[in-house]
Amino acid sequence: MARPCKGVALCDRLDLMRIFGAHFEAEPGLELHSPDRVETPDEIEFALAWRPGPEAFAPYPNLRAVFSIAAGTDGITVSRSLPRGIPLIRLRDPDQALQMAGFAVFQVLWHHRGMADLLTAQTHHEWARTPGGASPARRRIGILGLGHMGRQIARSLVALGYPVTSLTRSPPEPEPGVAHLTQADRAAFLARTDILINVAPMTEETRGLLDRALFDALPRGAALIQLGRGGQLVETDLIDALDRGQLSGASLDVFATEPLPKGHPFWDHPKILVTPHVAGEPEPKAVVENVRRGMEELDA
Amino acid sequence: MARPCKGVALCDRLDLMRIFGAHFEAEPGLELHSPDRVETPDEIEFALAWRPGPEAFAPYPNLRAVFSIAAGTDGITVSRSLPRGIPLIRLRDPDQALQMAGFAVFQVLWHHRGMADLLTAQTHHEWARTPGGASPARRRIGILGLGHMGRQIARSLVALGYPVTSLTRSPPEPEPGVAHLTQADRAAFLARTDILINVAPMTEETRGLLDRALFDALPRGAALIQLGRGGQLVETDLIDALDRGQLSGASLDVFATEPLPKGHPFWDHPKILVTPHVAGEPEPKAVVENVRRGMEELDA
Repeated sequence: MARPCKGVALCDRLDLMRIFGAHFEAEPGLELHSPDRVETPDEIEFALAWRPGPEAFAPYPNLRAVFSIAAGTDGITVSRSLPRGIPLIRLRDPDQALQMAGFAVFQVLWHHRGMADLLTAQTHHEWARTPGGASPARRRIGILGLGHMGRQIARSLVALGYPVTSLTRSPPEPEPGVAHLTQADRAAFLARTDILINVAPMTEETRGLLDRALFDALPRGAALIQLGRGGQLVETDLIDALDRGQLSGASLDVFATEPLPKGHPFWDHPKILVTPHVAGEPEPKAVVENVRRGMEELDA
Repeated sequence: MARPCKGVALCDRLDLMRIFGAHFEAEPGLELHSPDRVETPDEIEFALAWRPGPEAFAPYPNLRAVFSIAAGTDGITVSRSLPRGIPLIRLRDPDQALQMAGFAVFQVLWHHRGMADLLTAQTHHEWARTPGGASPARRRIGILGLGHMGRQIARSLVALGYPVTSLTRSPPEPEPGVAHLTQADRAAFLARTDILINVAPMTEETRGLLDRALFDALPRGAALIQLGRGGQLVETDLIDALDRGQLSGASLDVFATEPLPKGHPFWDHPKILVTPHVAGEPEPKAVVENVRRGMEELDA
């Protein structure tokens, strides 16, 4: 039998060994080690990483691939020791994409069907029936980003009858029932978006993307669902847009600082639904499977 | 051109003329009249009805069909003057089915993802992240009834990765991804249902269906989503099951008495989400279209 393929877990924030260790032990042919237990660094072939330190990759001269524990890679590219010229592989977890899609559908209904008002009405024993407007055709959904997650979200909303348009940097693979626009048509995209869902990747281009100019380009009373990265949102611009009535509400699952600090104004804002980064969580077995498949493809 | 086909609006609860009158006026070939404006009752060919009085149908000897303004017909069969031997046609509104499906998906996520707890956590500025359990594979959905509405709900939940089983009186047309059981396997169906969605039609058989025996046959901690009819729920049994912890929560959109009376215990129960019968509302144009198609089929 072939020697096991050895890897190292690199993260300053989470104990990856605690989360993923047992799952790697159960996988024949793969070994995952903590950096302080690696005796022969030149035998390490892969890194499983998230928020690694600036020099985290330096001790391993023979890395063949780096794997993200998430759909994004922005938590890894921040490390200046990240080796160039080897694959940086994002997690593609179909189950996580379904979780994200369910969560996004929940938030769309939250805004479209006025669920916050209905919850308030319940506390006042009020039968607050306001007929009209329940048809999905009445809310145009715009999705920023159409990667693995965005595509599943789009698909789920189309299946529920919502009109869906995506905005991407370059024309994507078509998705049945979804209209596509690119940056040249950004203004037209925003003008026809009643509920905006952000799942764009975090890059230098998308930093601060959700700002006053963008909010003002949406129809008055639009809602924001923020599932991307905290750094993409200009927080004061959001509060201002909500207080002016330009936006009717926002659902935020990601934040520039996580956990969201105790005194942050988002917590008490009546038009903001705060959730603690729970839209989609990677399943450990999907992370292991991603590494196994990635290393097999390198060997093939 | 043929003479217009004349109908009468029969309802003790709602002003059907106010809701549907203008939409019928816009439809060539169809006329809808208020009973107090009908001069020649023997020319009335159809009735549009909901909660008609006991003698409401009696003046019209030449009715050829009765149309419901809803997916159910239980609001019509209560009238003792309902003519036998002519079609009683329920509303089939694809848009309303999509509304119901979106609403049902919202409620499934509400229970599955612990949204009530996250809302409470927000009021306490608490980052209440509890990883694990977000996969749709972890919640088995059981649907009572697989008509026009139930089928769309099932389809939407399958698309989001949830395991779905339906329970129906007789074997239904298969629906991709949905397992089907009939009454003989009721105990097995309930034992494997973590979230129960009721969209069964209201009949003498389903009156009081959601009772203590049914709740106790579900796994401990199951949740109920009630989108059927109020008379199908034994209210005191539900409160008892929630208070015992046998059920973890309930979403109720329909009630034995609507509007739900001010002092009703459902309003303040911490595990009950009350909504004012808003899951799906018929679009007037779908009601008109249903009548037009129904009368055309009688003529064909």
